[in-house]
Amino acid sequence: MKNNKLVSVDGALSSFLSSMEPVNRTIMLPIEEADDRILSKDIVAPMDYPHYDQCILDGYAVLAEDTVDCGTEPIRYLSLTDNDFVAKGLCAVVHTGSVLPPGADAVLRIEDVIIKENRIIPTKEVKRGQWIWGKGAGLSQDDTVYREGMQLKPTDIAMLAKLGVTEVCIYDRPRVLIVPTGNECVRRGQVLEAGFVYEANGLMCALLVKRYGGDPTIHDIVPDNIEKLSDAIRQGLDYDLVVTIGGSSSGGRDLMAQAMALTGTVIFHGVALHPGNHMGAGFIRGNNADIPVLFLPGYTESCAVASFTFVDAAIKRLGHQPPSRYSTETCLLTEPVATPNGIRAVRKVHIRNEKAKPIKMIGESAETGNYAYLTIPEDRADLEANRMVEAVYLE
Amino acid sequence: MKNNKLVSVDGALSSFLSSMEPVNRTIMLPIEEADDRILSKDIVAPMDYPHYDQCILDGYAVLAEDTVDCGTEPIRYLSLTDNDFVAKGLCAVVHTGSVLPPGADAVLRIEDVIIKENRIIPTKEVKRGQWIWGKGAGLSQDDTVYREGMQLKPTDIAMLAKLGVTEVCIYDRPRVLIVPTGNECVRRGQVLEAGFVYEANGLMCALLVKRYGGDPTIHDIVPDNIEKLSDAIRQGLDYDLVVTIGGSSSGGRDLMAQAMALTGTVIFHGVALHPGNHMGAGFIRGNNADIPVLFLPGYTESCAVASFTFVDAAIKRLGHQPPSRYSTETCLLTEPVATPNGIRAVRKVHIRNEKAKPIKMIGESAETGNYAYLTIPEDRADLEANRMVEAVYLE
Repeated sequence: MKNNKLVSVDGALSSFLSSMEPVNRTIMLPIEEADDRILSKDIVAPMDYPHYDQCILDGYAVLAEDTVDCGTEPIRYLSLTDNDFVAKGLCAVVHTGSVLPPGADAVLRIEDVIIKENRIIPTKEVKRGQWIWGKGAGLSQDDTVYREGMQLKPTDIAMLAKLGVTEVCIYDRPRVLIVPTGNECVRRGQVLEAGFVYEANGLMCALLVKRYGGDPTIHDIVPDNIEKLSDAIRQGLDYDLVVTIGGSSSGGRDLMAQAMALTGTVIFHGVALHPGNHMGAGFIRGNNADIPVLFLPGYTESCAVASFTFVDAAIKRLGHQPPSRYSTETCLLTEPVATPNGIRAVRKVHIRNEKAKPIKMIGESAETGNYAYLTIPEDRADLEANRMVEAVYLE
Repeated sequence: MKNNKLVSVDGALSSFLSSMEPVNRTIMLPIEEADDRILSKDIVAPMDYPHYDQCILDGYAVLAEDTVDCGTEPIRYLSLTDNDFVAKGLCAVVHTGSVLPPGADAVLRIEDVIIKENRIIPTKEVKRGQWIWGKGAGLSQDDTVYREGMQLKPTDIAMLAKLGVTEVCIYDRPRVLIVPTGNECVRRGQVLEAGFVYEANGLMCALLVKRYGGDPTIHDIVPDNIEKLSDAIRQGLDYDLVVTIGGSSSGGRDLMAQAMALTGTVIFHGVALHPGNHMGAGFIRGNNADIPVLFLPGYTESCAVASFTFVDAAIKRLGHQPPSRYSTETCLLTEPVATPNGIRAVRKVHIRNEKAKPIKMIGESAETGNYAYLTIPEDRADLEANRMVEAVYLE
């Protein structure tokens, strides 16, 4: 696979993402299970918020006019009312959250009175409505609280709980069929002969799919056989995305592009991404919609980087979610990093004490510390040592 | 609560975190369920990796000496071997992952040969060992793969799968008892009278605890009664952390500090954090260890900010996890933000098109876009409009 046959990552991503439609299945979920999910319709307030005139701190409900000029002589006394009604010259004890007693129109903070047995002396003037949160002042019944497309977070769910909303209508998670392939792959737990390896990429992809907000299903390992590969891809018609792993290169047993061409349409094959350049994408035609297919390389490093880049973006788009936001850390690179020219490169680093040391992506993490990634743009050559780099926590 | 009685956030955090020990319970988990979990003991390789001399691409296994000066006359032919053994003048077809045939010591890439029926002409010299990944070249049996304390990510789990490791010993999640309190609180789903509100903070805290890697249990709502509050706190002896909500201020029904003093020891009460300044922390003495207790304010905004700051840090420490890393976004602030002096302030913003607009933390999110937070340090005064700010995705 030569560089000049490779499509750029951005070009490949945009042609792939534009070939797919977000999932339109919706489900009802109790709010307790709706963290991070995307609303599929607007939520309207089932009641006023607050639903009564609420005292917002501990103190005394009064008539505001009884506090006018209260700092001046003669000393003003307000008597605790015997019933619920607050009239001129009277007051009533209230707490945070209390109903404002009828007749009262303000609350005096406990700090702003002197208590004299069953009377109080106001020491600070209050205005009408002070320390009161009026019925419907936050939201009126039938106001829109959150709109379709919003991603619910814990503080949003707290708001729904306050309003008495107990369940929400959200978009279903994208269902992803993961198809590990290769004659050399053996299911984990079986005896391993020379010439065979445990299937690991399917599990890795499934864990990533879950992180991205998808619902993964791992297919049985498919041997390097065009018919069997095509059959497996066709099972993707019951899913929202198919991710195959292995056979995406150009060797004698690399049949995935052929199987895809037989089963659907290839959009691109070969991306300026390292590792991961042998990947491709296409779609198969379903009854209602085209099902996008990513065919990823079988090298675990390549499979991981292709997943970080393409599976992530695809699931976010299918799931109506905003693109992933990753945390970053600025570090000193301790060793040079060689990268191919004209190709976007992704490299793993071990981070400790703000120093980033390049390491193998798979299999060399025996040092404690954090692990992150450098993304080196297409137009950059090698990174020299002792420069500052921005590491991204892609995992 | 006056500013001069408030302990700084950093001081409060450090005294609180230093009062607790990470959880030492461990559990075995299948690797399929171990994403993001923390290893409680080193993992050693159960076999060499790779476990055989592995060909790493498609081509022909040869003797390297048969390719020396292969570009020169006379043309060198290598015959396909009839059996598994590769001797001088012979070669054997291999694929990615194939066992290196006995006798061979290098692999010729398919691109570097000319195929002539059942013979090949090597066109490029290879060295001994080329395109071969020798048995144990990655790891030898009993080598340490990952150390205690490491947080497993999908690529790490792929490595374990390759090695035939099927389960791992990890630290148990911190168990967190969440105790919502307050006479005004009503369980969700019940009829709501004036003067009562649906309990929402317990659920919000539980969702945050899950995000932070803890295992939350929500206690029944406890009324404002010292004995009942103390009883509830004491149930925390079966947990790793207690988080109470409400009653942390200084009003007549704010009994949490008293209940804590009766049941255990208060470390601090009142933090220079806004909202959230009424919070406190302490511990209760258990049989084996002290159980840390956070008592958070009942205002949902205060409860949220106290959780972002203290519950997050506590669970990460209890769970052996690195501190949370949040993604950030640099935006233009569209409106000024007033903050109290000498107090760390946390404010919510709505982000769209790289513009951040201050909004209410709870209850005002009807615009589509992203929601993030500004943390304004103690030594900063108000933020003026039209300055750049760094918003943090705390949720």
